[in-house]
Amino acid sequence: MANQYVDIDTLKFFLYDVHNLEEVLLQERFTDHDRDSLNLFIDSVKEFSDRELFPYFKEMDENPAYHENGGVVVHKQVEVMMKKGGEMGLISGTFDYEAGGLQMPMMVYTASAFIQDAANNHLPGYVGLTLGAAELIIHFANKELNDTYVPKMLSGDWGGTMCLTEPQAGSSLSDVVTKASPQDDGSYKISGQKIFISGGDHQYAENFVHLVLARIEGAPAGTKGISLFIVPKKRPDGKGGLISNDVTTVADFQKMGQRGYCTTHLGFGDADDCKGWLVGEAHHGLKYMFLMMNGARIAVGRGAAAIATAAYHASLQYAKERPQGRKLASTGKKDPEQGQTLIINHPDVRRMLLLQKVVAEGSLSLVLLASKYYDLKETVTDPLEKERYSLLLELIIPMVKTYPSEMGAQAVSNGLQVLGGYGFCADFILQQYHRDIRIFPIYEGTTGIQSQDLLGRKLLMENGKALELLTKEVMLTIENASKFEDLRKYANTLGGKLQLAQKVIGFLVGFAKKGDYERFLSDASPFMEFLSNITLAWVWLETATFAKSTLISGALKYSEEFYESKIHAMRFYYKYELPKTTGLAEILTNEEVLTVATEKEILH
Amino acid sequence: MANQYVDIDTLKFFLYDVHNLEEVLLQERFTDHDRDSLNLFIDSVKEFSDRELFPYFKEMDENPAYHENGGVVVHKQVEVMMKKGGEMGLISGTFDYEAGGLQMPMMVYTASAFIQDAANNHLPGYVGLTLGAAELIIHFANKELNDTYVPKMLSGDWGGTMCLTEPQAGSSLSDVVTKASPQDDGSYKISGQKIFISGGDHQYAENFVHLVLARIEGAPAGTKGISLFIVPKKRPDGKGGLISNDVTTVADFQKMGQRGYCTTHLGFGDADDCKGWLVGEAHHGLKYMFLMMNGARIAVGRGAAAIATAAYHASLQYAKERPQGRKLASTGKKDPEQGQTLIINHPDVRRMLLLQKVVAEGSLSLVLLASKYYDLKETVTDPLEKERYSLLLELIIPMVKTYPSEMGAQAVSNGLQVLGGYGFCADFILQQYHRDIRIFPIYEGTTGIQSQDLLGRKLLMENGKALELLTKEVMLTIENASKFEDLRKYANTLGGKLQLAQKVIGFLVGFAKKGDYERFLSDASPFMEFLSNITLAWVWLETATFAKSTLISGALKYSEEFYESKIHAMRFYYKYELPKTTGLAEILTNEEVLTVATEKEILH
Repeated sequence: MANQYVDIDTLKFFLYDVHNLEEVLLQERFTDHDRDSLNLFIDSVKEFSDRELFPYFKEMDENPAYHENGGVVVHKQVEVMMKKGGEMGLISGTFDYEAGGLQMPMMVYTASAFIQDAANNHLPGYVGLTLGAAELIIHFANKELNDTYVPKMLSGDWGGTMCLTEPQAGSSLSDVVTKASPQDDGSYKISGQKIFISGGDHQYAENFVHLVLARIEGAPAGTKGISLFIVPKKRPDGKGGLISNDVTTVADFQKMGQRGYCTTHLGFGDADDCKGWLVGEAHHGLKYMFLMMNGARIAVGRGAAAIATAAYHASLQYAKERPQGRKLASTGKKDPEQGQTLIINHPDVRRMLLLQKVVAEGSLSLVLLASKYYDLKETVTDPLEKERYSLLLELIIPMVKTYPSEMGAQAVSNGLQVLGGYGFCADFILQQYHRDIRIFPIYEGTTGIQSQDLLGRKLLMENGKALELLTKEVMLTIENASKFEDLRKYANTLGGKLQLAQKVIGFLVGFAKKGDYERFLSDASPFMEFLSNITLAWVWLETATFAKSTLISGALKYSEEFYESKIHAMRFYYKYELPKTTGLAEILTNEEVLTVATEKEILH
Repeated sequence: MANQYVDIDTLKFFLYDVHNLEEVLLQERFTDHDRDSLNLFIDSVKEFSDRELFPYFKEMDENPAYHENGGVVVHKQVEVMMKKGGEMGLISGTFDYEAGGLQMPMMVYTASAFIQDAANNHLPGYVGLTLGAAELIIHFANKELNDTYVPKMLSGDWGGTMCLTEPQAGSSLSDVVTKASPQDDGSYKISGQKIFISGGDHQYAENFVHLVLARIEGAPAGTKGISLFIVPKKRPDGKGGLISNDVTTVADFQKMGQRGYCTTHLGFGDADDCKGWLVGEAHHGLKYMFLMMNGARIAVGRGAAAIATAAYHASLQYAKERPQGRKLASTGKKDPEQGQTLIINHPDVRRMLLLQKVVAEGSLSLVLLASKYYDLKETVTDPLEKERYSLLLELIIPMVKTYPSEMGAQAVSNGLQVLGGYGFCADFILQQYHRDIRIFPIYEGTTGIQSQDLLGRKLLMENGKALELLTKEVMLTIENASKFEDLRKYANTLGGKLQLAQKVIGFLVGFAKKGDYERFLSDASPFMEFLSNITLAWVWLETATFAKSTLISGALKYSEEFYESKIHAMRFYYKYELPKTTGLAEILTNEEVLTVATEKEILH
């Protein structure tokens, strides 16, 4: 098995240099942190991941979680992840001091979770969802509920989950039917079924705190009638102990990948004795849930970026060790008397490795950027600045979730291809990354849903103000890059792509203006591919500009080759990835309507 | 599990109508066959696949082949496949009468194997490789070897394999080191290791006939010193019986997909008692092997097309049954009081299904076209015509192998996405297709190898004559399509793409002319994507033209909707797939050289 899953220099380069974490640390909330203390934290996470996560990655795939005797049995490292994670602040790190947290920036949390995801993507979700559930309680539930549930969650003793999906309602939350009936004691009686509940049950947590979307009897139809409840697996018995709360683990879904990360089917109130407690106000459940969604979507993008990164390092290591074939001579022939060359010297293999590199590192840069917007929108005091970061975050979020997931899967597939036949074999790890990453375009809103969010909501939000702000950021990068002769050509290319994007958006928005929403959104997915491709071109130009100015300044933290490799990656992106947007623009401005359903059935 | 894996109407439409099998039946070799008799054969294969292949597809994945006590244990249906396959002529169908065959056209063999592959891609390889091995013996080995081995292979009693790959030599056959030492009795003593040998051992064949590439002692280095040997697992003892031939089954590779199709590691001559018999002349082994390679590459393209087809039907069935969400009203909102709609009515789902359809059916059309060229080059008597079909086949073969494999994998991934979270779950079949198809871009020469073959050899072959011939075929389709007003616009688009291809090829060939072969071939893979995309646009325009002219003539064999759906698929291809070639042309004509290895290491 490959022994490197992440390049810490690259991670720190993006964190501290390109995205300038120290700018964020200037905010009052983060005054107790500095670069040294955060570096210590990141290094300890790397050490923990080396020791407790990465060595169990293959084993967890080969011994998947399973359902037995009404519970789910998971790998023993889940216990280590929960307990040590609690101790190290991997659950509570970003929370306020008063909520038991460390007031760490989201940027640092993202960097730390990225390392864990790259080491073993089957494990960090157990703490990640506990974190998300605790965050919902802290933000929206009353003090009593906070006191009852949060401390045990932050320590990793109790697990937390998000219960949204139901068997008859996948992406369509307006069809949630889980019922909540008010009781005299202020609680609610809960009944219903929830599926695809990650980390929903296992033998290493004493209790599970489920955050459940349900409909109070008599609530309006659709998303406006959904409320949020805390429904623990075991509820307090009023005497300091816990008793069963009639939550049943019906099944554990067996999956193609992430097999060590359990995915449960839960039943609530089969014996009519399941109690839930309302979080915040009635009928506001979906709003609360979606306030947490940006964090969840950054986490999905981060996880996919991490898997793509680990796969890149595994195939890179193979390519550097495997001799095979010969370089072509100027005759166009190969000389069999010549020794074999390493496969990394074949242009097609380098192309596949460089594709992986630009996708993995570009995705990492993107999730760190989103985390920075997140930190700043939460902490800056100037309301205009606050709005600016908030809008920037809202606009890029669907791309942050989708680009690493979709392109990460393609990058991993290229990584598998680098190994040839061995890539398909269970003895090599690439096939596991290939299976694991395939869930990411589905998690937390599929690519289709994200694309409709991007085109249908985010782009038009506040009369297109978010897009205006993002355009300004891109223009600034173009301006900075243009100062370097070597980069001017790429800056000009990106400028051209911005104009192309304006044209495409103008064309599509035309349909919305005419009230033809179905047509407006019918090509949302190719539009997602188009706009995120251009966004990544921006991210890469920014990175190359930073590298270039550092090389010129001579203030190198890493080797010269390190900075040059980042500029090379940008060039690769502009040659091999960005041109795809030309074809995508053709698709998006084509007048033909071919995917809107009509009377005539053309699919059989 | 979905219950339809193939649409026989579509298969027959491409076989008889678009590619006009009856034109091939006019050749002398096929005089005993007619449409009725071949239809009976195809229908019997469908019936066999329904009964004996499809029902075991999931079971074979869940109970993979494994190594035990020096042998490989496979699923019991392998026996049915071999024995019934032998009886039904699935092994010998295309062979000459005198070789025990039925003189069936390759087109019909491809259609029949396509059905089997779609039903259960873990099984047909067992007979397919037996066929390939028998074919090599029939073509190149002497009568004695033919009499000894072929009859038992055609009956399915003995298995056959191709042994090319060695642990230290994957794609690089010039590094084969398996040794052959001449013996006094005219045989050779064989010693070496072969890996990735599909169908290399199992409990249901009495004997295995391995066709092994090896180097006779003192042979020249490189590919010119490789000879071909028959090396049976058990050799004749001279008394009408069989004795062990010192072939060891070292291991069975465990894989991500095609888990029911065993992939063995074989050792030859560990006890210094392994005999082989030379096939044809010494040092010509690779040439013989590659004469069979066109058939093998059509088979890979066919298998991938079949998996993409089965996945399309599985996701189509799901989309037609699953209610979820609502259609957008002209306000851009959804009305929760309205009932849910089937997901097939969502434009993004239709887009994914149509992508699957154009890839699956386009790939099927392409493999049938290649089979037609194969049949005609083998049977026409006019030497110019023979050369024409031969060159057309040689040129398209790398695309026939690669397009269905690469785009088929993308199509299947879209099929999985149609099911959302369920697509990732073991209870649904899409995830198995996703895993199974991933080997196809690796089989029989990876995409990188195929791309170098296309750009580096086939395009330049006989001064570009093959390309000239293919261009003529495309021009003819453009001319025919232009007669229909509805199709003229697409015909013009394809004409433009032909010119674009000329420009791209001119640019790339410039490097070869300057002797810069490494640069010439460095973008071979994007070129493959470019040229096969245009080739598929041709295939689809041909199909739409046929459908259009049939609709106008009124001589319908199928419903009006059937023909219209083919025209719709062509339109979809021209809107959503063909424009990608614009971006690819930009990539291919970019002057920057970024993937040729230099002193500076930019990959870490």
